[in-house]
Amino acid sequence: MKKIECEIIEVQDYPIPGIVFKDLTPVWKDQDLFNILIDKMTEIWVECEIDTVASIESRGFVVGAPIAYKLNAGFVPLRKPNKLPREVYSQAVSLEYGETEIQVHKDAFQESKKVLIIDDLLATGGTATAAFKLIPENLVTGFGFMVELSELNGRKKIEEISDARIESLVIYD
Amino acid sequence: MKKIECEIIEVQDYPIPGIVFKDLTPVWKDQDLFNILIDKMTEIWVECEIDTVASIESRGFVVGAPIAYKLNAGFVPLRKPNKLPREVYSQAVSLEYGETEIQVHKDAFQESKKVLIIDDLLATGGTATAAFKLIPENLVTGFGFMVELSELNGRKKIEEISDARIESLVIYD
Repeated sequence: MKKIECEIIEVQDYPIPGIVFKDLTPVWKDQDLFNILIDKMTEIWVECEIDTVASIESRGFVVGAPIAYKLNAGFVPLRKPNKLPREVYSQAVSLEYGETEIQVHKDAFQESKKVLIIDDLLATGGTATAAFKLIPENLVTGFGFMVELSELNGRKKIEEISDARIESLVIYD
Repeated sequence: MKKIECEIIEVQDYPIPGIVFKDLTPVWKDQDLFNILIDKMTEIWVECEIDTVASIESRGFVVGAPIAYKLNAGFVPLRKPNKLPREVYSQAVSLEYGETEIQVHKDAFQESKKVLIIDDLLATGGTATAAFKLIPENLVTGFGFMVELSELNGRKKIEEISDARIESLVIYD
């Protein structure tokens, strides 16, 4: 039986020199591992009455949408600029490399009471904290990540603005 | 009980004048509808022994990844240019508006026997046929779409290059 940790491929100097990129696609393409991955990332939150999963474009969708399905929750995409067709809120994002923005429809969380933020990777926490700021106050119940690069201190950055629970499946020191 | 068809919002002149954009996010954010959507899109393929679901970035991931999970299949992302970190195959895509390219890791389908292509929307068929060409011959077992805009003849375009089954949940004339 393959293990999730062992199938992640480290790609040197991608997308820019000095970055070691964690390629998660070998985990996702494996029938058993994709299933185990979603089950493990979901089971933590089963008793939390999550009604909405919000995920960040686009790798976040790959883990967030199945978790929403399994939790019987709705799914809200937090998207790159100019991708959503109706009125949006925007947040600037500082990434490990570069700057961008994420957006969400203004009516996305109208009926939400408990929101779970899911992304594939927690690095510096720039995307996760921007996601948090896009979601109305007090709705965020937790943050779930497939992989956490702990030396980049993203967890600390989230904890500075939110008391919500943070769970990562695979943590690199 | 809400209905999928009734929650899709038509946005005039987005992303360019003359296009009526189908905004599917109201369906996805609804707990019941997202669940029903994935169940309905999946049940068609349950007996087809699908081992891999391939979906197109990024809205395709929102439906494709949960379907992969539910079918106990692996998930392969077909991505926009320069997003995948290792060696890729590329295909040009003619869209309803504009041109782009989609890419996949060269080793993505190494262990696949039956591949299901999932996307949110079938319009002109440009993306779906490009996806088909990225997948090794004879592996594509079917195409599944949440919405089909039948007047744009995407179904016909797919049928010109593939005998695989094509299923759409909501069809607009």
